[in-house]
Parts: sequence; C-alpha cells; structure tokens
Amino acid sequence: MQTSNPDYHDFVASIFDKAGFIKDLGIELNDVGPGWCETALTVRGKHLQQDGFVHAGVLATMADHTAGACTGTVVPAGTLVLTVEFKINFLRPAQTDALRCRADILKAGKAVIVAESEVYARHGADEKLVAKAMVTLAVVAGDNRQAGP
Amino acid sequence: MQTSNPDYHDFVASIFDKAGFIKDLGIELNDVGPGWCETALTVRGKHLQQDGFVHAGVLATMADHTAGACTGTVVPAGTLVLTVEFKINFLRPAQTDALRCRADILKAGKAVIVAESEVYARHGADEKLVAKAMVTLAVVAGDNRQAGP
Amino acid sequence: MQTSNPDYHDFVASIFDKAGFIKDLGIELNDVGPGWCETALTVRGKHLQQDGFVHAGVLATMADHTAGACTGTVVPAGTLVLTVEFKINFLRPAQTDALRCRADILKAGKAVIVAESEVYARHGADEKLVAKAMVTLAVVAGDNRQAGP
Amino acid sequence: MQTSNPDYHDFVASIFDKAGFIKDLGIELNDVGPGWCETALTVRGKHLQQDGFVHAGVLATMADHTAGACTGTVVPAGTLVLTVEFKINFLRPAQTDALRCRADILKAGKAVIVAESEVYARHGADEKLVAKAMVTLAVVAGDNRQAGP
Repeated sequence: MQTSNPDYHDFVASIFDKAGFIKDLGIELNDVGPGWCETALTVRGKHLQQDGFVHAGVLATMADHTAGACTGTVVPAGTLVLTVEFKINFLRPAQTDALRCRADILKAGKAVIVAESEVYARHGADEKLVAKAMVTLAVVAGDNRQAGP
Repeated sequence: MQTSNPDYHDFVASIFDKAGFIKDLGIELNDVGPGWCETALTVRGKHLQQDGFVHAGVLATMADHTAGACTGTVVPAGTLVLTVEFKINFLRPAQTDALRCRADILKAGKAVIVAESEVYARHGADEKLVAKAMVTLAVVAGDNRQAGP
Repeated sequence: MQTSNPDYHDFVASIFDKAGFIKDLGIELNDVGPGWCETALTVRGKHLQQDGFVHAGVLATMADHTAGACTGTVVPAGTLVLTVEFKINFLRPAQTDALRCRADILKAGKAVIVAESEVYARHGADEKLVAKAMVTLAVVAGDNRQAGP
Repeated sequence: MQTSNPDYHDFVASIFDKAGFIKDLGIELNDVGPGWCETALTVRGKHLQQDGFVHAGVLATMADHTAGACTGTVVPAGTLVLTVEFKINFLRPAQTDALRCRADILKAGKAVIVAESEVYARHGADEKLVAKAMVTLAVVAGDNRQAGP
C-alpha cells in the first residue's frame, strides 16, 4: 500500500500517546506498517461486563482505534481522520487475559478510508477470533479540523 | 411494551453495578421503563481521543450498554443477553462536558432483540445528537450461559 | 432542513427515472420534501425469496435508494452522491402486497450525509415496521464524477 | 467447517431455484463447499443506478443471498435461516459486465450464524473488490417457520 508519509511511525505513535481513553484502557501499539496496525491489551477487571466477559465496548474501542491508527500510515502526518461509523460483530464471548487486534485498510480513498479490524482472544500460544469490525473514516483537511466530516 | 418481569428495575440496576467497565467509565443509569433506558456520563480527560473529542469508543460503549440495559426490561431477571453486533454512526465530533444516551427497543423477539441508541452532547439546556447506533442482541437461555449466541 | 436547490423535485424524480434497477423493481417516488423522501412498492412474485417472504435485497434496495433520493433535496442538482455503506436490520419477515419506505437525513455534512430509512409492510390501513437502515453517503464533486468517494 | 448435512448441495441449489428475486436478477450459483458459497451475475442495464454504476441494491442482494446460501451447508436441509441484519461497504463504483461474490462463514452458532461476503467486479482475467458485507443470520426451527427471529 502507498504511503504519502514515510515517517508514519511517529504520527501513529502519537495517536496512542495523546488519546486519554486509550492510555486509560491500556491499549498498546504493537506494530505498524503501510496500511495496517496491530495493538494489544492486557485484560483486567475494569474491562469486564456484568457476566465476566470482556465488555463489547472494550472490543469496539480496540477495533475502532486500531483502524484509525492504520489510516495514519497513508495520510500526511497531522491529518485529522475521524471515524464516520463502524459496525462490529461479536462472534464469541471473550474470556481471556490478553487481546490482540489487527486492522487492515480495505480502500484508501482521498476523502473516505475503509478498514477492517479483527480482535483475537489469546490463550497462551493459541488465539480465537472474538470480534470483527468494518470501519469507515473521513479524511478531514487541516484547515477545518474542528468541522467534522 | 410488554414485560415478563415487573421488577425489572433491580435487574437493570445490576447490569450497571456489576459491570467493571461501566463503573470505571462512570456511565450512570438515569432512568428506565418498559422497552427503554436512559444513561448519563460526565466527560473527563480520560474519555478523549487524540484531538480532544470524546473517543468513539466511549460513545459506542454508552450506546451498546444502554441498549443492553433496556433489554433487561423485557426478559426474565437473570437472563443472559449478549450483544451480537452493533453499528454506530458518529454525526458530529463530541466536545462536551456531559453526554446523555437513550435506547429504545425496536423489536423484542424471543431469541433476538433489536434496539437503537441515540447519544446526545449536552451544552447547558441544549443538546445535540452526536451518535446513533443500531444494536442486535441475543437472548441466551440460563442453562448455556457460557455458550454465547 | 436547509436546501441549496429549491427545485429539488425534478432532480429527485430523475434519480428514479434514470435508474434501471429501480424501474425494473417498480419502486416509485411517493413524495419528497427538504431532508426526506417517501417511496412505495407493489410486491409481486419476482420480489420474493425462497420461503415466500419479500427478499432482504428488495428491502435493502428500497432503503438505500430512498435514502439516496432524500440527499437530492440538500445538494445542488446534478451532484453525484454515492452510498458509502449501509446497515439494515430486518425486524420481521415481510409478507405483504405493499411496502412503503420513508428516509430522513440525520446529518447533512458537506462531504458526508447520513440518513435513516424505515420500511413498512402495509396491510390495508395498517402497517408494520419490517426493516430499518442507516445509510452513509458521500458527496462527490462534479469534476470527478467517475472517481468515487 | 463441520456440516450436519452431507447432501447440502441440493438444499443450497433450491435456495436459488425457489427465490423469485434471485431468478429475476440472474444471480447464479457458481460453486459451494462447507462454510462457503460463490455466485456470479452478468450485469445488464436493468442492474444499474442513475449514473451508470451497478446499483448498491444489486451488490447488497448478491452479498446477502450468497451469505444466506452458504449457511445452507451447515444446517439441516430445510431449515429456515433468515437474515437478521447486514452491513455493506461500497469501496468503488462498480462499472463492469460481470460480478462475482464469495461468502464465508465466520462463526456458525446454533442460533446465530455470521458470514462475510466479498463482491468483485470482473474485467477479463482481472477483478477488483467493489463491496464487502458482514451478515448476521438467525437459524429458525422448523416448527415456527412463520415466526421469524
């Protein structure tokens, strides 16, 4: 995949460092390349829902943020990219100590980028797909950073 | 809307009390009635993304959890209801101190419940719709609480 | 809702007249106003799936096209608007002779428009909500009509 | 992927033969195996929208029906499976004479099956991904075939 910013790594890293919600949850940037990004989360009690599974909101946040981060590899550094919408299917209840998320760009348009994210529950060397999302993002120009899509 | 559990209030309250992620975020149950639920969140720095807006994951969590909670008014107390999937559109960047979410059941089937959630950014007496979600949930019988949908 | 084209009616009508698929299906423009549109379909055997219900694809087409048509009331005539994505829930199997669809714009941004569509099965004077969709559309400028979003 | 019906081919073929809408559109079953299905469509003027692209409703119908058909390989013959919801992203305007769709099951639960569908525009030996969908389906027992999910 083409990138207009060969130094995308710092920009992507800043998407994690500056996001209070991601710091608070503990979602970490694992690795990143042109058109893709991978993150990890160590699950704690504060990530669970009422029945002891990882909350759907945690999985959704991971899927959304990792998708947003992978757009940072194909736009100029500093570009404002906002999530327009996403849809996520929860395939199995997630009962695990560790989650991994991988996002890949499906289509990098000038105004709209579409990515998909897969979230895996890790059990030692084994892992299972627990959620899959499709995410639509809008590239917002520098001038109207407050305007939204 | 019909309810098979006239004492749904305690069951719905427990969906908030027992969910570590919801306690940690600070999402509170405002009010609840047959087929609907309303929640509130006071926004803090830990809820933001890298550009200072409320993180999409926070809005998604609020939409999902409020939808899940409103199913608690139409199923027997203790029933396991899990989110199968949801889709959420972000209509405007949310810059606000306070969010309100209202979820309503669109269809309460025996096995599948569909709800929609609207999230509003409050500015004093004024409020604006910032996100809207459609949520599909599965009613999982008591016997196979671990099995998922 | 604001419109930049007071003569939107002709533009919206052309969205139906020029679309081969819509003519073939028989979806008709009922009425249209600023930010909304209403369509109708008389159901025939060619609209059904294998079990005798209206095919999900018919309901989805009606929801998508009616949403697209209502964007024609808020953009300049001749603007190319393309569906970026939609999500549709099927609430009840549709067994009916007549369908009605109503689409409303939730947010009319410069680059992205979000609408929702409701499809009703009519039974005489009565009608039931059988499907609900959220549709995201991209406003594509006249110059790059071939480019897509 | 496990199948409870080794003779699934006839059941899947009937999902195409008995569906008036699919016959009318001309969507054909190409091939099918445990957990997957592939279909094809020769594009004609009656499949287009107002700007000469394949109508989003055609792509959505193909994605939905192919996903539904692939569930026919993992349930007992004759089981009623209904689409609960789907979400589809349109990645590029489709201008082509031929479409191919491939659906794969992501999770085959007892009550809920999740599949994803990819639609490709063919240009000779070449093809491009034009749409991708995630589809949630409900397995409805034989006794209440009229009841819906």
